Amino acid sequence: MQLGMVGLGRMGGNIVRRLLRNGHTAVVFDQDPKAVAALVQEGAVGADSLEDFVSKLELPRTAWVMLPAGDPTEVTVMKIAGLMQPGDVIIDGGNSFYKDDIRRAAVLDEKGLHYVDVGTSGGVWGLERGYCMMIGGHKEAVDRLDPIFSTLAPGLGEVPRTPGRDGRDPRAEHGYIHAGPSGAGHFVKMIHNGIEYGLMQAYAEGFDILKHANSTELPEAQRFDLNIGDIAEVWRRGSVVSSWLLDLTATALAGDENLDAFSGHVADSGEGRWTLNAAIEEAVPAHVLSAALYARFRSRQSATYADKLLSAMRKGFGGHQEPK
Amino acid sequence: MQLGMVGLGRMGGNIVRRLLRNGHTAVVFDQDPKAVAALVQEGAVGADSLEDFVSKLELPRTAWVMLPAGDPTEVTVMKIAGLMQPGDVIIDGGNSFYKDDIRRAAVLDEKGLHYVDVGTSGGVWGLERGYCMMIGGHKEAVDRLDPIFSTLAPGLGEVPRTPGRDGRDPRAEHGYIHAGPSGAGHFVKMIHNGIEYGLMQAYAEGFDILKHANSTELPEAQRFDLNIGDIAEVWRRGSVVSSWLLDLTATALAGDENLDAFSGHVADSGEGRWTLNAAIEEAVPAHVLSAALYARFRSRQSATYADKLLSAMRKGFGGHQEPK
Amino acid sequence: MQLGMVGLGRMGGNIVRRLLRNGHTAVVFDQDPKAVAALVQEGAVGADSLEDFVSKLELPRTAWVMLPAGDPTEVTVMKIAGLMQPGDVIIDGGNSFYKDDIRRAAVLDEKGLHYVDVGTSGGVWGLERGYCMMIGGHKEAVDRLDPIFSTLAPGLGEVPRTPGRDGRDPRAEHGYIHAGPSGAGHFVKMIHNGIEYGLMQAYAEGFDILKHANSTELPEAQRFDLNIGDIAEVWRRGSVVSSWLLDLTATALAGDENLDAFSGHVADSGEGRWTLNAAIEEAVPAHVLSAALYARFRSRQSATYADKLLSAMRKGFGGHQEPK
Amino acid sequence: MQLGMVGLGRMGGNIVRRLLRNGHTAVVFDQDPKAVAALVQEGAVGADSLEDFVSKLELPRTAWVMLPAGDPTEVTVMKIAGLMQPGDVIIDGGNSFYKDDIRRAAVLDEKGLHYVDVGTSGGVWGLERGYCMMIGGHKEAVDRLDPIFSTLAPGLGEVPRTPGRDGRDPRAEHGYIHAGPSGAGHFVKMIHNGIEYGLMQAYAEGFDILKHANSTELPEAQRFDLNIGDIAEVWRRGSVVSSWLLDLTATALAGDENLDAFSGHVADSGEGRWTLNAAIEEAVPAHVLSAALYARFRSRQSATYADKLLSAMRKGFGGHQEPK
Repeated sequence: MQLGMVGLGRMGGNIVRRLLRNGHTAVVFDQDPKAVAALVQEGAVGADSLEDFVSKLELPRTAWVMLPAGDPTEVTVMKIAGLMQPGDVIIDGGNSFYKDDIRRAAVLDEKGLHYVDVGTSGGVWGLERGYCMMIGGHKEAVDRLDPIFSTLAPGLGEVPRTPGRDGRDPRAEHGYIHAGPSGAGHFVKMIHNGIEYGLMQAYAEGFDILKHANSTELPEAQRFDLNIGDIAEVWRRGSVVSSWLLDLTATALAGDENLDAFSGHVADSGEGRWTLNAAIEEAVPAHVLSAALYARFRSRQSATYADKLLSAMRKGFGGHQEPK
Repeated sequence: MQLGMVGLGRMGGNIVRRLLRNGHTAVVFDQDPKAVAALVQEGAVGADSLEDFVSKLELPRTAWVMLPAGDPTEVTVMKIAGLMQPGDVIIDGGNSFYKDDIRRAAVLDEKGLHYVDVGTSGGVWGLERGYCMMIGGHKEAVDRLDPIFSTLAPGLGEVPRTPGRDGRDPRAEHGYIHAGPSGAGHFVKMIHNGIEYGLMQAYAEGFDILKHANSTELPEAQRFDLNIGDIAEVWRRGSVVSSWLLDLTATALAGDENLDAFSGHVADSGEGRWTLNAAIEEAVPAHVLSAALYARFRSRQSATYADKLLSAMRKGFGGHQEPK
Repeated sequence: MQLGMVGLGRMGGNIVRRLLRNGHTAVVFDQDPKAVAALVQEGAVGADSLEDFVSKLELPRTAWVMLPAGDPTEVTVMKIAGLMQPGDVIIDGGNSFYKDDIRRAAVLDEKGLHYVDVGTSGGVWGLERGYCMMIGGHKEAVDRLDPIFSTLAPGLGEVPRTPGRDGRDPRAEHGYIHAGPSGAGHFVKMIHNGIEYGLMQAYAEGFDILKHANSTELPEAQRFDLNIGDIAEVWRRGSVVSSWLLDLTATALAGDENLDAFSGHVADSGEGRWTLNAAIEEAVPAHVLSAALYARFRSRQSATYADKLLSAMRKGFGGHQEPK
Repeated sequence: MQLGMVGLGRMGGNIVRRLLRNGHTAVVFDQDPKAVAALVQEGAVGADSLEDFVSKLELPRTAWVMLPAGDPTEVTVMKIAGLMQPGDVIIDGGNSFYKDDIRRAAVLDEKGLHYVDVGTSGGVWGLERGYCMMIGGHKEAVDRLDPIFSTLAPGLGEVPRTPGRDGRDPRAEHGYIHAGPSGAGHFVKMIHNGIEYGLMQAYAEGFDILKHANSTELPEAQRFDLNIGDIAEVWRRGSVVSSWLLDLTATALAGDENLDAFSGHVADSGEGRWTLNAAIEEAVPAHVLSAALYARFRSRQSATYADKLLSAMRKGFGGHQEPK
C-alpha cells in the first residue's frame, strides 16, 4: 500500500526503502530536496511542499512524520492535519513525548483524523533486520496500516519462538504491537529506552571494573591484566549476559580495546529523562534507570559544583586539602 | 580425555554428561551415592570416597571440584591435593571468591600441583547449549585441558561472528577464555554475575513502570493498561534491548503475566557482593551494580528499620503521622 | 501590620499566632468555622467568606494563602485575585510547584496584583522558634511585607554568626531571604526538601547498618549489640554529623529504640519528586536525592513486580527456587 | 591522670593539648622530634624512642596511638605491646578497620593487656569544642580511663538535652560512649563517617541543582539566578536541614560562592568504603551511602572507561557520534 513520509533522515529514509523493496509505494517530502531526490531515484514519488505531499496521497491518506520530537513534529503534524480530511491517518514515528501524543490525538480526533504514534527501534540496522515497533492509536487505523507494519517489522526471523504464546496476538512475535490508545506506543518505547540506558550502564560499570583490575590501588598479588575484548566475546555464547548490546560491545572492543576514539562525553535523549518522570509519577523505585541517566549527565562535566562543595566542607571541618 | 568430577549437583552432573556424550570419560564422586549411581548408568566410573576417586584417575590427574564456595570447596580441594602428585591438576569450577583461588593456588604450587579456577555460566541450559567458561591458571595446565574445555564450550553455534577479530585468540568466540593466572577466571565470572544483576534490575524496573502505567496515582487520561507479556515478546526482535534475559522474561510472562507464583523475595549470591567489594577496592563507581544488589536485600525485608527511622524523624519535625 | 490568612491548619494557624503575639493584627478565614473561632479568641478578626475576608483587609491588602498545593491553592488564589485591586498582594505560603507560581504571577501581574511565594520551613516548631522563609516575588511587595517576615523569622537567636558575611543581605542570617522573582521562593524550598530527604536517608541507612551489626549473617566474633539510642545521642556533641534531624532522631530513640510504633511506610510529598524533575531538566546528577525518594516509594510496597520479575528470570535461567 | 601519646599530628597533638590544659599529664613521642619539642614546651614529657616512651609511663600504663590506619598503627601497637606488662592499656585512636581491632585485641588479651579502640570525631575544632568519642574495649579499662575521656569530650555544652533520657548512660550526652567490646568503637565511628559522606552528598547535590537553576537547558522563563551563599545561610535558622555541615558550607560560600579554589577532586578514606562492605555483609540496602562514595571516586577521573563504552555502544547501534 501507499505511505507518505515526511522527514528523510536515517530512520525515515530507510523506512521508505524497506517498504519500496517489498512492494509498497511511497510519497516523500523533506526540507532538503536532495534527500527527496535520492529516494525518487529508488522509486518513491517526490513532493516539493507539504501541500504537494498531501495532494499526492491516495485516500484515505497515510502520512508518517519522522522528525525530531518537540516543535518540528508539532508544527508539521498540525500543518498536515489542516490539509487532510476525515478518515486520514497521521503517524508520528519519532521519539515524541507520550503526553504530546495524547494531546495531539485529541485535537485530530475532533477533526475525524486518526493519530497513530509509533515507537520505533532498529537503529542503523533496521533497514536490513527490520524495525521493532510499539504502536498507539485507534484500532481501526492500526489495523488498516497492518501491511505497512508487517513489512517494516523484523518478522519471526531466526529468533526461537517463545513457548506458551499460543493464542496470543501473533504480531508481538513478528516484532510489532498495538500497545493501546494514542500515546501508548511512545510510552512503551520510552520505557524501552530507559531500560536500554540501564542495560548499557550495567555493562559499562562491569567492564570498567575489569579494566581497572590491574589498578595500582590493589595489592600486587591481586591484580589482573585482562583482555577486555576477549571477555566481551566469550560472554556472547552460553552466558546469561549475552545480548545485542554485548554483540555491539564486542565489535567495538575488537577494533579498539582502549576506546581511545571516544571522549567519554555521552549524550542523552528525552526518553531516558521521561522514563524517570514516569517512574516518579507512578511512585515506582527506579534506582538503576536513574543512575544510568545521571552517569551520562556526569560524563559531560569536568568538575562539578557538587564535588567542589564536598571539598569545601572537608576543608572546613577537617582542614583537608584535596589532592589535585 | 579423562576428567574426574567431585560434586554431582545440577552443574557438576551435567558437565559430566556433556563430556560423556562427546567421547570423553569420567570418574565421579559425590557424598550422595545415588548421584554417583545415576552417572555410572550413563557411562561414568563411580568412586565411593575421595581416596578411591583419586586412585582411579589416570596420570597426570585432572580433578574438577564442583561444590558450594567456601568451606566445602576449601576442604575438598585441600584433601584431594594431599592425595595427588606433581603435575596433577585441580579445577575449581564453582563460584569461589577469587582471593581464595589466589591463596589456594599458591599452596598447591608449592606441591607442584596446578590449580585452575573456572567460572562457569550456563545454568540449566548448559548441557544442551554448552557452558561459557572463564579460566584462570597456569598456561601449561589450561592448554593440556583444552579438549575438555572445547567440548564443554558452546562453540560458534549460530551466533554471528564478531567482525575484526581475525588474529585474536579463537577460544573466545567458541565460548571459553584463559583469562589469566589463578583467580582470574573467577574474577571475570564474578563481574559477569555483577553485570547480570544490573541487567536484570534494569529490566525489572522498566517492566515495573509499565505495569504501573495504569496506576490511580496518574491522571486518568494518561493511564495505559498495557499487555506486559506482549511487550516483552515484541522487544525480542529488532530491538536494542533484546537479550537472553529478555527471552527468559518473555517466557515467564507468557505463562503468568502477573507473576503471582513469586513472593517477591529474591536471593543473592556471593558474586554480586564481591563485585561491589572489587569496585570499591579499585575506586570505580558502580551505582547500577550496587542498586541491583540492594534491591535484592530490600526484597527480603517487609519493613526496614531505616524506613521506621524516617517516619520517626517526620513525626518529630512535622508532627506527621504516616499512613499505614 | 495587618495580614490576612486563609487556611488555619497547623502552619497557617501558628503563623497567625506568632504575628499576634508580636504586635501585628490578622484577619482570618477557614472553611472550618471552629478554626476561625479559635483564632478570634486569640485576637484575630474572623471572616465567614472569602468576600468578607477581602473586605476586612486594609489597603493595600495582604492575603496569605496557606492551603494544600494544587487545586485548593489555585482556586483560592484566583478567587481572591478577583476581589482585589491593584497594589494588593497575595502570598502563597504553601508547598506549591514553582512553575504554578510563575504562571499565576503572570496572571496577577496583568491585574496589577503582586504574587509572592513563600517557602516555609519550621514544622511544629515554628511557632516557638520561628519560620525559615524563602521568598519569591516583586521587590516592592517583598520589601513592604518585611515587618511580617522579620517577625515570623527565627532571627539571629543563639546560632553563631557565619564569619565573612559582612556587607551581605542581613535578612539571610535572620532566617529569611528574597530569593528572586515569583517562583524562586518555592524553587529554593523545593530543593530544601529534596536535601532533607537525602539527609534523612543517610541517617536512616547508617542506623540500619548499626542496628544489624549483630546480624546472624555475620561471623559471631564480628557482631556487635549496639545501643542505638546512645549512639544518636553521642553524635549530637562534637561530631560532624550533628544536626537538627539528629536531635529529633535522638529524641525518638530515647523513647523507643526499636521504633515499633512505626509501620515502616513512609509518605512523600511533591517537593521531593519535583526536585528530581528539576535535576533532570538541568542535567545535574542527583543519585542521593533520587535514592532517598525511591526508598520511600519502596517502603509502601510489600512485594514489587520488579522483584518478582527477578525471581522469574532466575528460575528461567538457573532453575532457582526463591526462599520465602 | 597521665596519658602517653604516640603520633603528634593535628589530632594527636591537640588531644594532648586539651588534656594538659585541664590538669592531666602526658608523655609524648613522635618520629619527628620537633613535634615532640613543641608539646614539651606546652608541658608534656618528651620521649625519644618507643622504649623511652613506655619506660616513662606510670603503671598501669596508658598509651594512646594516633597514627594512620594500617601498617603504621599495626607496627606501633605491636611494638608497644611487646614493652608493656599485664594491666596496661593501649588505645588506638586512629581510623583503624574494626576487624583489625578485633584481631589485635585478641593478641593483646593473651598477654593480659587491654586494647581500647576510640573512634574520634572533632576535626580541627576538637581542641576547642571537644572530641566526640566512640569507644570499644574491656569495661575495666574503659572505666579506668574515664577521667581522660570525660576531659576530651565536649560535655553538655549549650546543646539542649534530649528529653526522655533519664536513667540512661550519662556519658552519651557528654559526648562519649562505651559502644561495646574491642572493635565496637571503630565500627560506630566507621558508620558515622559513612553517614557523613551521605549528608555531604545530599547537600552537594541540592546546591548543585540550585547553582544550575539558570542553566540554558531550561526555558528562559523558568530560570533563576540564585544567591547560593544566602541560601546556605538562611537554612541555618529554623530550617530542618540545619546542621554543622551546613554551617561549614555557609562559611565556605560566604568567602567564595563559586568555590573556584577547589578542583573538584575529592578524596575518600577507608571508613566510607568499609561502611559499604559492612552493609553488604549485613545485607542492608545502602543506596545513599554508596552513591556518596561513588561520587568521590568519579570526581577524581576526567573520563571513564565506562562512559567511553556507552559511546561505543551508541555508535554501534544508532550510528551516534558523541558531541565533545
